[in-house]
Amino acid sequence: MKNIVIVGGGTGTFTLLSGLRKFPTNNAVIVSTADDGGSTGRLREELGVLPPGDLRQCLVGLSYTDPVLQDLFSYRFAKGSLAGHTVGNIILAALEKVTGDVERGIAQTAKMLNVRGEVVPVTLFPTKLSATLMNGKKIVGEHHIDEPRHDGNIRIKSLTLKPGGAANPRALGLIAAADAIIFGPGDLYTSTIPNLLVKGVAEAVRRSSAKKILITNLMTKHGQTDKFKASDFVKSLESYLGKGSVDAVIVNSKKPAAAWIARHKKEHSEFVEPDTALLKKMKLKVLAEPLLNGNTFEKNSGDVLKRSYLRHDPDKLAKLILDAV
Amino acid sequence: MKNIVIVGGGTGTFTLLSGLRKFPTNNAVIVSTADDGGSTGRLREELGVLPPGDLRQCLVGLSYTDPVLQDLFSYRFAKGSLAGHTVGNIILAALEKVTGDVERGIAQTAKMLNVRGEVVPVTLFPTKLSATLMNGKKIVGEHHIDEPRHDGNIRIKSLTLKPGGAANPRALGLIAAADAIIFGPGDLYTSTIPNLLVKGVAEAVRRSSAKKILITNLMTKHGQTDKFKASDFVKSLESYLGKGSVDAVIVNSKKPAAAWIARHKKEHSEFVEPDTALLKKMKLKVLAEPLLNGNTFEKNSGDVLKRSYLRHDPDKLAKLILDAV
Repeated sequence: MKNIVIVGGGTGTFTLLSGLRKFPTNNAVIVSTADDGGSTGRLREELGVLPPGDLRQCLVGLSYTDPVLQDLFSYRFAKGSLAGHTVGNIILAALEKVTGDVERGIAQTAKMLNVRGEVVPVTLFPTKLSATLMNGKKIVGEHHIDEPRHDGNIRIKSLTLKPGGAANPRALGLIAAADAIIFGPGDLYTSTIPNLLVKGVAEAVRRSSAKKILITNLMTKHGQTDKFKASDFVKSLESYLGKGSVDAVIVNSKKPAAAWIARHKKEHSEFVEPDTALLKKMKLKVLAEPLLNGNTFEKNSGDVLKRSYLRHDPDKLAKLILDAV
Repeated sequence: MKNIVIVGGGTGTFTLLSGLRKFPTNNAVIVSTADDGGSTGRLREELGVLPPGDLRQCLVGLSYTDPVLQDLFSYRFAKGSLAGHTVGNIILAALEKVTGDVERGIAQTAKMLNVRGEVVPVTLFPTKLSATLMNGKKIVGEHHIDEPRHDGNIRIKSLTLKPGGAANPRALGLIAAADAIIFGPGDLYTSTIPNLLVKGVAEAVRRSSAKKILITNLMTKHGQTDKFKASDFVKSLESYLGKGSVDAVIVNSKKPAAAWIARHKKEHSEFVEPDTALLKKMKLKVLAEPLLNGNTFEKNSGDVLKRSYLRHDPDKLAKLILDAV
């Protein structure tokens, strides 16, 4: 059975897992520990726990159990003192406290959800992400990078993660044994790259004989990937992994309907152009297909974070990955 | 197998269940829906759910699963925006929302906890308890009766429950099929009797051929049972059930150590005298034994409610009940 390791966390990873889970692969997700927005941000701040949100989403994504139980974990309170929190985040935070150990807490949650596969935080301690923009301005906190107040056209120059400290050995082990390592879809600078800032992770990826596959996002994200074409995703990722590290890139070849383009434009988000010719010039294997999910997504009430309306088609993504491995 | 039905909820019931669960009986608990204090009170107020606290405690009491999972359900947050809430209360509230049905929510929780037995709310809607004192003063809300500001020597004259409405049919069915119906230990006016105020419940108890057994509390509770002797518990209960309804009474015959008596005195709480002679005169079967648990109990941080320091010995209680049935 092929070992597929996904570097990410968040809604994009959840989408990918909902496709991959249908195939007989060993799926593991390595999740950033820098999230500090919304329910997750409050729980880590108030209780000192590892940010639970992405862990929870990935655990539900790999869960094979009663759908009611999955709905429970994803349920987000819309009002009252619990407003904004999801039950799964609360359970993960409590299990870290009850067991006194974040890995045991995750294992217990995985047991409750009958998870097939693994969800592994990239560090065993919470981290804080900072970005320095091209104009020298520094933004502290994942959430503030994610939903910036600055003019999004000022690109991110560099990222730092604090505290430094060892990577979760399990994450390094998974990378070493992988047949494929998948980057994205997801927020490039706040979900994917933070994993690579942890000591030893980028090097482990470089050393791994796995196929490294990047899935570019459908739309640009304001403050992160403004004006990015598919090739810019590769360049940015390779600036952390080393030039030529990426083997293949999966790009969506079909522009969403005009109404969606218009809606995104209001949020300074644009279609990611599949600049296939340049990608091929970069010696990448290019898998270009119409990958848009027919459904669109509105977020729950109580949810204070920005979420994308458009998602990848999970089955098409999974099939492309399996063909490539 | 004998059908044991416990009318109550709360810590006293939890104690009893932790003894009864070791025996091969069918255990069911009928739980009041008038609780409005602490975490439970906030959840019912903010989300409109059935008060979860007593349901949760009884479900954990009848759970046969991984102790970590039981600890999770009982875990109470000590700080932050979740302070005071237990995870089990949050899960019950969310499952009522997710399933759209309180009974399905309880059933799902029972499944998660591998519950043997049944936990049944006495109504399928939240209720509000009011007390009228002997001096005519009215106290609205279970929580305010439970922790009164008035001089505790003013006894409760009568209780009312609103809204009126049908009892949960499952509760009536359990009472009809019971071999024994147990009242207490627990807060007489705020945990036990509220169940009997629901239309049809007291009558169902009277009609049931079950042995009706009252377990008197170890200590009086300020504002509820001040100065009560064992016989006063019987009289009070029978004023709702009908004179002569109670068959047997279990009383603790051994006074706690002086230090504990002193600590309780500060909270206007006294030893419940086992006035056995009077009880026998009332034609009751009297089961009097030293029933004090060797351990004492301090409440968790984050818990805003009063809890008793002293508890019954669960195994002794269970044995007495099984001998009596």
